[in-house]
Amino acid sequence: MADDKKLVEEITSRDVDFAQWYTDVVKKAELMAYSSVKGFMIFKPAGFAIWEKIKSELDRRFKETGVENVYMPLLIPEGLLEKEKDHVEGFAPEVAWVTKGGEEPLTENMCVRPTSETLFCDFYANEIQSYRDLPKLYNQWCSVLRWEKETRPFLRSREFLWQEGHTAHATFEEAQERTEQMLKLYAEFAEEVLAIPVIKGQKTEKEKFAGAEATYTIESLMHDGKALQSGTSHNFGDGFAKAFGIQYTDKDNKLQYVHQTSWGMTTRLIGAIIMVHGDDEGLVLPPAIAPVQINIIPIQQKKEGVLDKCREVADSLTTAGFSVKVDETDKSPGWKFAESEMRGIPLRIEIGPRDIDNNECVAVRRDTREKENVSLDDICTRADELLKTIQKDMFNRAKAHREAHTYTAKDYDEFKDTIENKPGFIKAMWCGDRACEDKIKEETTATSRCIPFEQERISDVCVCCGKPAKHMVYWGKAY
Amino acid sequence: MADDKKLVEEITSRDVDFAQWYTDVVKKAELMAYSSVKGFMIFKPAGFAIWEKIKSELDRRFKETGVENVYMPLLIPEGLLEKEKDHVEGFAPEVAWVTKGGEEPLTENMCVRPTSETLFCDFYANEIQSYRDLPKLYNQWCSVLRWEKETRPFLRSREFLWQEGHTAHATFEEAQERTEQMLKLYAEFAEEVLAIPVIKGQKTEKEKFAGAEATYTIESLMHDGKALQSGTSHNFGDGFAKAFGIQYTDKDNKLQYVHQTSWGMTTRLIGAIIMVHGDDEGLVLPPAIAPVQINIIPIQQKKEGVLDKCREVADSLTTAGFSVKVDETDKSPGWKFAESEMRGIPLRIEIGPRDIDNNECVAVRRDTREKENVSLDDICTRADELLKTIQKDMFNRAKAHREAHTYTAKDYDEFKDTIENKPGFIKAMWCGDRACEDKIKEETTATSRCIPFEQERISDVCVCCGKPAKHMVYWGKAY
Repeated sequence: MADDKKLVEEITSRDVDFAQWYTDVVKKAELMAYSSVKGFMIFKPAGFAIWEKIKSELDRRFKETGVENVYMPLLIPEGLLEKEKDHVEGFAPEVAWVTKGGEEPLTENMCVRPTSETLFCDFYANEIQSYRDLPKLYNQWCSVLRWEKETRPFLRSREFLWQEGHTAHATFEEAQERTEQMLKLYAEFAEEVLAIPVIKGQKTEKEKFAGAEATYTIESLMHDGKALQSGTSHNFGDGFAKAFGIQYTDKDNKLQYVHQTSWGMTTRLIGAIIMVHGDDEGLVLPPAIAPVQINIIPIQQKKEGVLDKCREVADSLTTAGFSVKVDETDKSPGWKFAESEMRGIPLRIEIGPRDIDNNECVAVRRDTREKENVSLDDICTRADELLKTIQKDMFNRAKAHREAHTYTAKDYDEFKDTIENKPGFIKAMWCGDRACEDKIKEETTATSRCIPFEQERISDVCVCCGKPAKHMVYWGKAY
Repeated sequence: MADDKKLVEEITSRDVDFAQWYTDVVKKAELMAYSSVKGFMIFKPAGFAIWEKIKSELDRRFKETGVENVYMPLLIPEGLLEKEKDHVEGFAPEVAWVTKGGEEPLTENMCVRPTSETLFCDFYANEIQSYRDLPKLYNQWCSVLRWEKETRPFLRSREFLWQEGHTAHATFEEAQERTEQMLKLYAEFAEEVLAIPVIKGQKTEKEKFAGAEATYTIESLMHDGKALQSGTSHNFGDGFAKAFGIQYTDKDNKLQYVHQTSWGMTTRLIGAIIMVHGDDEGLVLPPAIAPVQINIIPIQQKKEGVLDKCREVADSLTTAGFSVKVDETDKSPGWKFAESEMRGIPLRIEIGPRDIDNNECVAVRRDTREKENVSLDDICTRADELLKTIQKDMFNRAKAHREAHTYTAKDYDEFKDTIENKPGFIKAMWCGDRACEDKIKEETTATSRCIPFEQERISDVCVCCGKPAKHMVYWGKAY
């Protein structure tokens, strides 16, 4: 039987082969399927449901800051893409081109949006006339295409889903404030909802977004010690405004250029959740983002009253605001336990005839696999406590793991030794020169992850060239 | 000032030039903007917010019937699109082709999805092995491209947003049941939420979906007497299954083909809302779909206590579950009234110093512009009653309008006279021959809208050829 094959083969151990473990988990937890469209993936219900939760939670937070949703065209004419020089240089090599519409060749080729700065700018140039039209705080949820050569589910795919916020402001300061506000929002979301601790900082010139004046990032550390850029926020200054002629009349009736920002989070966050929290039994979802928070598994479900009691408990928990499922399939309880663990459901509740006699149930945490008996009278209160504890513990464990895998390097030998032997972040000083950054990348494959807002003084000199240091930088190998 | 120009120019009267009225409303209610990408439109916040409401209400109804959301690739390789003969013939002439990815020509061209049957089939062929894997009840929310020559905002655009449900079942009967279930769901949604009465029926062979065995539709009538196809549901039988090899092993261990359905609703529903309910003051939104249901407008807002009272009332109404806005801008009350009407906000509440002294406010219905004084103690209860009444009245008015514009024709002269002089639906008998349908379309531009489930016997013979009639058909000019 098709079902029986699935869980019999065990997944690869996380510490034996992390990449294979990841591939096993995304498939066996049924998050995705490979598509016969090369480089593209299919989001299956369990994977898409996580994205829906991310989306609704982020969207609510955006709207609280005054952001409104819009939707811009999927295609960008070549001439529009080319208007901002740095931007087109950054994106042209990785876009897909539409050259034919219906049965006729297009008079101007169009690319499928890799990002929509140019469309928003074109729109803003028409929409914004006066200071009264500012700020514009728009966002869109959509899919974008980037013609990647090597792809991995959720992490790097020719198509991914994301949100892209695009704002226009009267002054550079206002744009800077919004840029930082959104970075802070992203960091809070990652830590509070995804239980993923992040480092906030600024990207170097080399790593910043094509066309931006400054790019800010939140960086997280995966279980294998590799870094993942988890959200970025850019201040464009008036560079795009000048290229697209986005001007407004200020209160003194003078023409001014607007200042813009953009900021985005993507479906790679699903990859981050898997790689930060997952274990050898599969996915482990933080309760705040789990599409199903509680899985009720009947024991001896054919005995009279068992299923009824399970449904009754499910109803109480649903009414109390939890997302609950009763597994009524005809599989064995052991099989259901394994499946529930594979899918990462935060809390499992087992109810059998003996439990019912004792007016209790067994509650099992997914993260620690700790079991306890809970009186059915207290189940809603206890479930709430357990889920909150799981959420908090998952964050603390991820943070402890990151701290245990964050190293410092005072000189280049130490840096190279660490990067080779100790997967994780390296904090090291940098002179600010591109040449050192290039050299480190070439010789170690580590990249500058960010210049963190919280600076420390590891030493006085650049870890690479020995000249006076300007910044402390987080370095690491990255996805 | 930019703001002041907007509403000073009046919109064209609906009965003088319906097409121009429509264009005026979509622009002045700020639902959309034209894009410099030819044939594509921009959804502005007020337009996109309506789609968000449609989406969340439909999505909830889908999920209640067991449907799960997934996401499939944006691009379809040419070979995949060609697998089902009728389907490719229907869609190939209107797709956009990607021929280059990054800097290299593709080895196989890919089209941007005009619809995703072929992708779902390709996926199902891998996913479905056993009867235990059935049914599959998947849906996706996405944008699709069809290379239309003439476009109109929301109604016909090279890109539109929609949901496409794709299900796979063990038997034809199960597929048929799901097809009808979704049509019923669409009809209820249109009538209960959008306040748009619909005719449920089956499309003729000529009008059915490319590759379907049977297409069902809900048809609505716009204020100008033209019809709008507002949602469709298709039973594919096993046609796609045979083309794509989607087979399962049944309980007797025999290989069987699955039977499939698909069903969709699109952003053209926004066009339907405008054209069914709008009037010479602008948009009129049914309360159940209005992103803002109540607009509170302060009178003499600079007087002490006025804004505070407005906010206090807004808080109570928000707590009671309504979506409320206080217009605190520095425009005049008259201007705000006009703007509130233009945007179609169902209920306007005016609060000024004298109202506060009397512990009351003025409530004004958008649909009828009726005013009444309401005690501030009763405002939540009365707002609820008023919004429910507006919703019901809007549906009843739309239904009365449709009934007043539904005609019957016994013979071809009567048919031609009616279609020329009385915009609306014509109920007339049909022999079932494609030739008559073609002739009617060619000579009158009217198309068969549907063979309604509720049949009547207008006469015994086909309205066109005089041969014995098989069905009563709704005919009409359509968007």
